[in-house]
Amino acid sequence: MSIAYVNGRYVPLAHASVHIQDRGFQFADAVYEVFAVQNGHLIDEEAHLDRLGRSLSELSIVEPMSRAALKLVIRQLLRSNRIHNGGLYLQVSRGVAARDFTDPGGLQPTLVMTTWRLKPFDVEAALKGVNVITTHDIRWKRCDIKTVQLLAGVMAKTAAHAQGAAEAWLLDNDGLVTEGSASNAWIVTPDDELITHHTDTAILGGITRQTVLKLATENGLKYVERAFSLEEAKGAREAFTTSSTVMVRPVVKIDDTHINTGETGAFTRKIVELYGAYMQDKAK
Amino acid sequence: MSIAYVNGRYVPLAHASVHIQDRGFQFADAVYEVFAVQNGHLIDEEAHLDRLGRSLSELSIVEPMSRAALKLVIRQLLRSNRIHNGGLYLQVSRGVAARDFTDPGGLQPTLVMTTWRLKPFDVEAALKGVNVITTHDIRWKRCDIKTVQLLAGVMAKTAAHAQGAAEAWLLDNDGLVTEGSASNAWIVTPDDELITHHTDTAILGGITRQTVLKLATENGLKYVERAFSLEEAKGAREAFTTSSTVMVRPVVKIDDTHINTGETGAFTRKIVELYGAYMQDKAK
Repeated sequence: MSIAYVNGRYVPLAHASVHIQDRGFQFADAVYEVFAVQNGHLIDEEAHLDRLGRSLSELSIVEPMSRAALKLVIRQLLRSNRIHNGGLYLQVSRGVAARDFTDPGGLQPTLVMTTWRLKPFDVEAALKGVNVITTHDIRWKRCDIKTVQLLAGVMAKTAAHAQGAAEAWLLDNDGLVTEGSASNAWIVTPDDELITHHTDTAILGGITRQTVLKLATENGLKYVERAFSLEEAKGAREAFTTSSTVMVRPVVKIDDTHINTGETGAFTRKIVELYGAYMQDKAK
Repeated sequence: MSIAYVNGRYVPLAHASVHIQDRGFQFADAVYEVFAVQNGHLIDEEAHLDRLGRSLSELSIVEPMSRAALKLVIRQLLRSNRIHNGGLYLQVSRGVAARDFTDPGGLQPTLVMTTWRLKPFDVEAALKGVNVITTHDIRWKRCDIKTVQLLAGVMAKTAAHAQGAAEAWLLDNDGLVTEGSASNAWIVTPDDELITHHTDTAILGGITRQTVLKLATENGLKYVERAFSLEEAKGAREAFTTSSTVMVRPVVKIDDTHINTGETGAFTRKIVELYGAYMQDKAK
C-alpha cells in the first residue's frame, strides 16, 4: 500500500483526503510540481522548488514550510514508498475556508504528496517516436503559473488518446504552437536549428525544457526560443516533446503528417542521449 | 454543526472530505451550481439542474444520479440544516483516479453539497449600490461551462475587495466587458435600454440573468443582448450586476467613475422590485 503525505501526516493513500472546502477543490486555487526520481535521486530538485516558490508567490499563497523542511518530507516519503526510479507529485493549495471567491488571507496552506514507481530511463526505449494531434489552445492567460487549472489539458490529452496519439500540441489564435497539453514542444528546422517557444505567460517554463537548452548550449547545438507555426512544425526535419514525466520523446507524426521520414532523427537522438547522460550524472 | 453531503453520506462539515486524487482537486475537472433558497423554496431549481446537466455533458462527466434522486438529496440536506433562507452549493467532479491528464472513463463521479443561511431577500437592502473595479479577463475560452477553474475570478475579486469594491468586471482584449468575476454585468443606456453581454463561450449564462431578461420581456422593458465597452459602461445611465448569490445589485461606481449621480437609478430599482416579487411568487 502506497503512503501519501497530507498536512504533516504520512497516511495510506486510500485514506488520504482533503476537506471539501479546500480551495484547491472548489476554486483550483492551488499549484503543483512533478519530480522525476532516477536511481534514487531527484532530478533538478532545486529548479522545481524554485518554480514552486514562484507559483506560490504569483498567487500570494503562503509557503507551507521552509525549503529545508520540504526536502526532508520529500525524502521521507520516497523512502517510505521505496522509490528508486519513478516520480513524486506535490500540490499546495491556499487552504480551507468557507466558500468565497475572495482570498480571506492568513490560511494555512494544504500540502499533499504522492509517489509512484517507473522503470529507469532507457535511451533505446525513449527513442521510440510518438504521434501528436493539434487542438486550439483554450487555456487561461497565465500558463506560466503551474496551477491545477488543467481542464483544457485534460480535454486535449483525452482527445489525443482517443485518436491514438500520445499528446496534443496547442495552437494559439495565430496558428502558432504554444506547447503540449502537459509538455513543451520542439522542432528541428531543415537548417539543424532547434526551436521551442520562448517563455512568456502563454507557456509553462518547463524544467526539462530548461535543462535541454542548457545541454544544447554546452554541446554547441544551435537553438532559438521563438514561436513556430503548425505549418513550420509539419515541414520540420525533426520534432520532439519534453516534460518531467516523459523526459524527451521524439514526435514522428503531427495530425496526419509524418515528420520527415516518420522516424526518430539524429538531432533528437543526440538530445535523448545527452539527457540520459545528464540524469545518470545527476544520479551518481 | 452544519451537515454536508458527500457521495451518499450526510456528514458533519468538519469531517467532510474527498480523496487527494479526486480529479476536482488535481485537475479542476469538476463543475458546480449555487442555488438560492428563499422562504424554504429553491429559486429556479430546474434551470440550475438543466445547466448542471449541460456542464457535465460538455465535459463527458457522468451524471452522479437521476434528477429526481438529486432533488431528494438537496431537500434532505436543506431539512437537516434547517435552511429556510440561504443557499446550497453542489459540486460534481469526474471522480477519483491515479493522476493522469487523460480521462480514464468509467469513473464514479464525486458529488458534494453544503448549505448556508442568509437573511431573506430584502428590496430596500438590495437597493444599496456597490462599487466595481475592472481588470483584464484572463480566463479560459469555455466560460460557458460552469467549472471550478475559478482562479482568475479569485484573483479579480480579491483585488476588488482590496480596493474597497464588491466585484470586478472583466475586460476582453477589445476593452469590452464580458461579465463579473462571479456575476453578470448590466448597463442601462441613456435611451433606457437594458444591455447585457450575449451568451457565447466568453461568459457563463447566468440563471438570474435569464430570469431578469424574462422579467424585462414580461414588463415591456427594452433590452439588447450584446457586448458593451468599459467606456459605454462608465457613461451609462445605470448599471447593475446579477448572480444567484447577490441576486440583483446596483453598481454606482466603476473604477473611479460614478455612474450618473452615483445613486441607484429608477430602472435598476424596477428590476430589483420585479426580482423580489418573482422570488416571493416562487416561494408561495
